[in-house]
Amino acid sequence: MRKILVLNLGSTSYKFKLYQYDGELEQLAKGEVESLTGKTASRYRISALKREAAGESAECRDHFTAFSFCQKVLTDSGVLRDLTDVDAICYKAVHGGRISGTRVVDNELLAVMKEMVPFAPTHNPIYIQLMEAIRSRYPSLLQLAHFETAFHQTIPEERTVYGVNYEWYEKYGIRKYGFHGSSHEYIAGRMKQLDPTVRKLISIHLGGSCSLCAIDDGRSVASSMGATPQSGLFQNNRVGDFDCFCLPTLAEKLGSYEEAFRQLGSNGGLLGVSGLSNDMREVLTAAQQGDHRADLAVRSFVDGIVGYIGMFTAYLQGLDGIVFTGGIGRKSGIIREMVCERLKCFGVILDEEANRCTSQQDILISAPDSRVKVYAVETNEELVLARETVEYLNGKRK
Amino acid sequence: MRKILVLNLGSTSYKFKLYQYDGELEQLAKGEVESLTGKTASRYRISALKREAAGESAECRDHFTAFSFCQKVLTDSGVLRDLTDVDAICYKAVHGGRISGTRVVDNELLAVMKEMVPFAPTHNPIYIQLMEAIRSRYPSLLQLAHFETAFHQTIPEERTVYGVNYEWYEKYGIRKYGFHGSSHEYIAGRMKQLDPTVRKLISIHLGGSCSLCAIDDGRSVASSMGATPQSGLFQNNRVGDFDCFCLPTLAEKLGSYEEAFRQLGSNGGLLGVSGLSNDMREVLTAAQQGDHRADLAVRSFVDGIVGYIGMFTAYLQGLDGIVFTGGIGRKSGIIREMVCERLKCFGVILDEEANRCTSQQDILISAPDSRVKVYAVETNEELVLARETVEYLNGKRK
Repeated sequence: MRKILVLNLGSTSYKFKLYQYDGELEQLAKGEVESLTGKTASRYRISALKREAAGESAECRDHFTAFSFCQKVLTDSGVLRDLTDVDAICYKAVHGGRISGTRVVDNELLAVMKEMVPFAPTHNPIYIQLMEAIRSRYPSLLQLAHFETAFHQTIPEERTVYGVNYEWYEKYGIRKYGFHGSSHEYIAGRMKQLDPTVRKLISIHLGGSCSLCAIDDGRSVASSMGATPQSGLFQNNRVGDFDCFCLPTLAEKLGSYEEAFRQLGSNGGLLGVSGLSNDMREVLTAAQQGDHRADLAVRSFVDGIVGYIGMFTAYLQGLDGIVFTGGIGRKSGIIREMVCERLKCFGVILDEEANRCTSQQDILISAPDSRVKVYAVETNEELVLARETVEYLNGKRK
Repeated sequence: MRKILVLNLGSTSYKFKLYQYDGELEQLAKGEVESLTGKTASRYRISALKREAAGESAECRDHFTAFSFCQKVLTDSGVLRDLTDVDAICYKAVHGGRISGTRVVDNELLAVMKEMVPFAPTHNPIYIQLMEAIRSRYPSLLQLAHFETAFHQTIPEERTVYGVNYEWYEKYGIRKYGFHGSSHEYIAGRMKQLDPTVRKLISIHLGGSCSLCAIDDGRSVASSMGATPQSGLFQNNRVGDFDCFCLPTLAEKLGSYEEAFRQLGSNGGLLGVSGLSNDMREVLTAAQQGDHRADLAVRSFVDGIVGYIGMFTAYLQGLDGIVFTGGIGRKSGIIREMVCERLKCFGVILDEEANRCTSQQDILISAPDSRVKVYAVETNEELVLARETVEYLNGKRK
């Protein structure tokens, strides 16, 4: 019987799920610690063996202290004897450049992740830091990284190049990778259960980060994200697709390129356009109350999704299904409706009542006569990582 | 009777058409001077009153000397008495930022064009230089600029914003403008003659520069180019869409941001990916001979076009027609075939025989049972500028 700890880190958040494997995967516990700013107390919520613990902790100042805190709760609750009980940790790692798939966290992997920090400045550093801290404290604990680029390794070569000197691809890793792979991989598998007739599928993950993935018969053939997770749709506070020839002007106006990139990566997206919030619920409310910039942010966000759906339909040469997932995708009937009402020409007809349903279940929201099936599905990225870890432990991954 | 001189400048080329207006527009002369490097003799080809002049000239070292040279040929041939015979010059100007449409070349316009140089570094400076040289030498000659952004002023607001701080839009002009407007405007008008039933149209200009435009009932609703003409499809030697978060790495590897932008603007596109040439004919030949990078460049170029067609079909909520224009678009049956064979799901069926036809006439190349009409059309950007100038001279433009 094996135990697997899956870790999903945000810039100020720590999330885990603990699985047990005994022929099949069972989730034993899950939890998260939020507001890891190091300044104020952080909030935690942990459920283990069907018991809930929640509260504030002054102890959790960063990802490592959050990790230790959660381990202690798990040990106290009896879910774990101690950390030696864990067979492997698996990280939802973001950017490994030329390294992808599921890999052991070793010196080479850490070096490449460091090299790719400029490509994923808000993601890679926190993973590297925790991987190194755990390795130094628990050297015998197996650590794996499953990269967000892994699912996208099947994207055709011509869709991975930019119009640049090809040597930059080979020497500096300047290419399109695609991200959010674990979520889109989960959706691809889940749709095989929900409706195996859906072969040409677009998975739309709308949450803090947002991306679309074109899936042809279970394999990723396109991602809206390119070389870095800052590209594609605009995100909560990140810019999305942007014309890089604006940068000389921005660098001059803002004082430096560094400042320009900092603002593109943290003051953009919903927050930048609306000027109000990086939270779609707040922006939607303001838009409904007539705030022009909030309304513009929502319309622009929806327009971007509609555009990518068209692009991916062309790549797929047809469309059988659309899945909305992620916090916004799963919960916001309004956004789904705004998107789908512009897709009639592709054969999409929404069932308005089903779309308004707030059930937690995965649900079909297209009308019976819709040529394209539309679903709202809860994603489970951690389960994909747990499965990958089992494969690794069973010797099926190198 | 009025005479209008329309000027279209490239980084090392000068093209003109001379029109006469007497109730309707008649083209009197046209010509071009190429290889304006200042280093070797340039080549010219001028046809006036059905006579042809061609050869080499050591006199033409820059755009102003090319202008003077051509004026002399026109005067010698009797088409013009002298320059006072010209009622107005109209430039196919590129980037005027907040200024668009057809405008008198005055101090404000020149100042804004200078401000926008970082947005159009290969285009704006040569126009500014010639405008200033002619203004200083012939102060009473009316000079107009028709901007490449003009046709795109009807793009909906939500499709013009990037996911950035909205104040950048207002203060620094950081927004999507769209370019190639004169060509796409010509195509929109020409299609009204060729087939007025085509309401939802995608115009694809493939030449030295490449862009797509979505046209809804004669009005532009989307351009593949954004804030600058370096974005969108990749071009002969320009990068096209690019993830700006690659730039810190490029600046480090290449020594500076300036060098990175220089290479993105002049060593990218077809040239960069193929490593061979910025000329599609040469790259196609190498691809057919089995060169991997040439083949990759062609496939990637075609893939980009297919993707934008899908995106624009979603924006248009349907598709009635596609027009290929520009040097490559008008002449390359292979590229058109590679694009169209992937568009069957949108109702595109090519007539293979018509597509192979090398006639100079505008031609329908879709099969009779194709739901979407596909045309290959010769563009005429200068005619759009001449018409705009007539409107201005007739007091219908301010």
